[in-house]
Amino acid sequence: MSVTTPKGFAAAGVAAGIKASGNTDLAVVLNRGPRQAAAGVFTRNRVQAAPVKWSRQAVEDGELAAVVLNSGGANACTGAEGFSDSARMAAETAAALQVPTDNVAVCSTGLIGIRLPMAAVASGIAAACGALSAEGGADAARAIMTTDTVPKQAGIGRDGWSIGGMAKGAGMLAPGLATMLVVITTDADVPATELDTALREACRLSFDRADSDGCMSTNDTVIVMASGASGETPGTEEFTAALTGVCQDLARQLIADAEGASHEIAIEVTGAASEEDAEVVGREIARSNLFKCAVFGNDPNWGRVLSAIGVTDAEFDPDRIDVAFNGVQVCIGGQIGQDRALVDLTGRSVHVLVNLNAGDQGATILTNDLTYDYVKENAEYSS
Amino acid sequence: MSVTTPKGFAAAGVAAGIKASGNTDLAVVLNRGPRQAAAGVFTRNRVQAAPVKWSRQAVEDGELAAVVLNSGGANACTGAEGFSDSARMAAETAAALQVPTDNVAVCSTGLIGIRLPMAAVASGIAAACGALSAEGGADAARAIMTTDTVPKQAGIGRDGWSIGGMAKGAGMLAPGLATMLVVITTDADVPATELDTALREACRLSFDRADSDGCMSTNDTVIVMASGASGETPGTEEFTAALTGVCQDLARQLIADAEGASHEIAIEVTGAASEEDAEVVGREIARSNLFKCAVFGNDPNWGRVLSAIGVTDAEFDPDRIDVAFNGVQVCIGGQIGQDRALVDLTGRSVHVLVNLNAGDQGATILTNDLTYDYVKENAEYSS
Repeated sequence: MSVTTPKGFAAAGVAAGIKASGNTDLAVVLNRGPRQAAAGVFTRNRVQAAPVKWSRQAVEDGELAAVVLNSGGANACTGAEGFSDSARMAAETAAALQVPTDNVAVCSTGLIGIRLPMAAVASGIAAACGALSAEGGADAARAIMTTDTVPKQAGIGRDGWSIGGMAKGAGMLAPGLATMLVVITTDADVPATELDTALREACRLSFDRADSDGCMSTNDTVIVMASGASGETPGTEEFTAALTGVCQDLARQLIADAEGASHEIAIEVTGAASEEDAEVVGREIARSNLFKCAVFGNDPNWGRVLSAIGVTDAEFDPDRIDVAFNGVQVCIGGQIGQDRALVDLTGRSVHVLVNLNAGDQGATILTNDLTYDYVKENAEYSS
Repeated sequence: MSVTTPKGFAAAGVAAGIKASGNTDLAVVLNRGPRQAAAGVFTRNRVQAAPVKWSRQAVEDGELAAVVLNSGGANACTGAEGFSDSARMAAETAAALQVPTDNVAVCSTGLIGIRLPMAAVASGIAAACGALSAEGGADAARAIMTTDTVPKQAGIGRDGWSIGGMAKGAGMLAPGLATMLVVITTDADVPATELDTALREACRLSFDRADSDGCMSTNDTVIVMASGASGETPGTEEFTAALTGVCQDLARQLIADAEGASHEIAIEVTGAASEEDAEVVGREIARSNLFKCAVFGNDPNWGRVLSAIGVTDAEFDPDRIDVAFNGVQVCIGGQIGQDRALVDLTGRSVHVLVNLNAGDQGATILTNDLTYDYVKENAEYSS
């Protein structure tokens, strides 16, 4: 499944010469209609990249014809010139596709604080627009990769309609929106307002709960486009559930490919007084470097889980917290429980179950361990 | 300078057999008076170790005769039995010194979630009380070390009176109180209420602004004891300033010896609308793993500084932020400034200066980089 699986979409990914490696680095996704409904969700970071500023206004009217994306440079902290560069990317794409400029969204990813090489970008846009095809989804997914080791795609087929999606993101993967670019397509006939509501709910239950390294990016963008080409109009609940499924699949793929990680950790918090409490507690544990290092060392260090929970303002009694690592109840009632030696953390998947015993709400946060390779990648990334 | 530099104090550090290494692991600091005024500040973590619960109530009346401290076990998350163990440590110390049990504070540090070996602890208390001497400060400072590589002591001499202090802490070093145990002594004649006010102000400007790894401990404790043995009564301002100086010295020593760190980083935030804004911004930068990895890689990655600032709710305009690394203005007005190649981060000390250009308040947060050795120490600590 890819962004070109749903009917009405074409895509391409080309090497524009933005990346020194010569790998593909520019993608275009086109919605041929008949409808061009769209919605977007953007980073909550107050330092926002130029393409985020551009795309937020482009999608505001609920309509997009295309998205142009580049890797190799985030176009963030680049001032008025950077904003002009994003506008020019939209304009050149619009001209090649013969659509209005303000119906083109722009996404960029890469290093913050450098200008894009606009001559290369412009020739890449021309090449990508000339190469658009209904089989181009996989090429587009590959062209938006930065430190990702594998492209991420997902999709769901329903009776007569489908959803396809692609994502990139391996570092600066955190709160609110995990740092990433995501483009989702559907041939269902869903009006923009409903698309917007469904996207916000889907993000809340997927990307918002993926927190690899606690660092929120300046460029996070999730865009969904609906072509209506299937002629089908699914019910709101059915569509939202399908969209949520695709987003959760992509979120899992992001965490699975996070920079330098050796464990994928699902922190499930149950027994919370509210869903928000469960999220806050899960996120605090996910952000504890000591907890993350312990998992890297295959050590079920529940003391570090409790000390992380203790700095939140969630409702709980320290003497009623239970913690299990991969099914072993190492902490019962805030004290020593089953023998920690029974826990096996040598596999890549880790399940930490925290029961606050303070209510009946829950949430699961996905995160990673903290490893030598994470430090290495992020110490060397820009130098 | 040590805790036995001020007149009226005796201390000792002995090997009780709590640590498998055989290193010294139990210390006692005794205040011989004539006064026994005291104040304490404790972790704000809601999961609190047994010794913290004990000492908070012991110091509540503004009077302490002694502090007993052990390394090799935090006695945290150990339930009612753990609290009994802390009470017993106080009782045995009190019996040996012939002082009331509720005038003895208890501090523990080490792994969370294991009971202390009380037979060893009891014999260590007896040995330490028998070895108390006015030259014992350095031994006490050494006995409270865990992953610390050097003991930390500081002091200030004034006209007729002095302050001495010791601290331990190298990991779980963070907010509110950096994770640590600190005992400070003075022979000035300062009543408990004034001691309490001075200590809170001193902590606010020192330990509260040291944040090595963002992880707040369950055991943080700072205790100050005044013997009045000098017969001098300094002015409030003079005493508070001196106490703040000693605390800042100890905080710097903690950050300098933080687990696996290769850089000591001072993040100075100026031009803030409030001191709180400056602190919030400094702390957010200090907790960005991407920023910390960049410094480890000697990379003045100001984009990661801006993206960290962007998630705070401090007052600022993203287009007016200036950032300098070791004096080079790499970011001016939220955009590319001086050439980053001019920055030299090969030394151990790094100064990051952020000007929010939103007011005239400021604060400096001390932190460390994120290194292979940090990951190594914390992956292997308990296994």
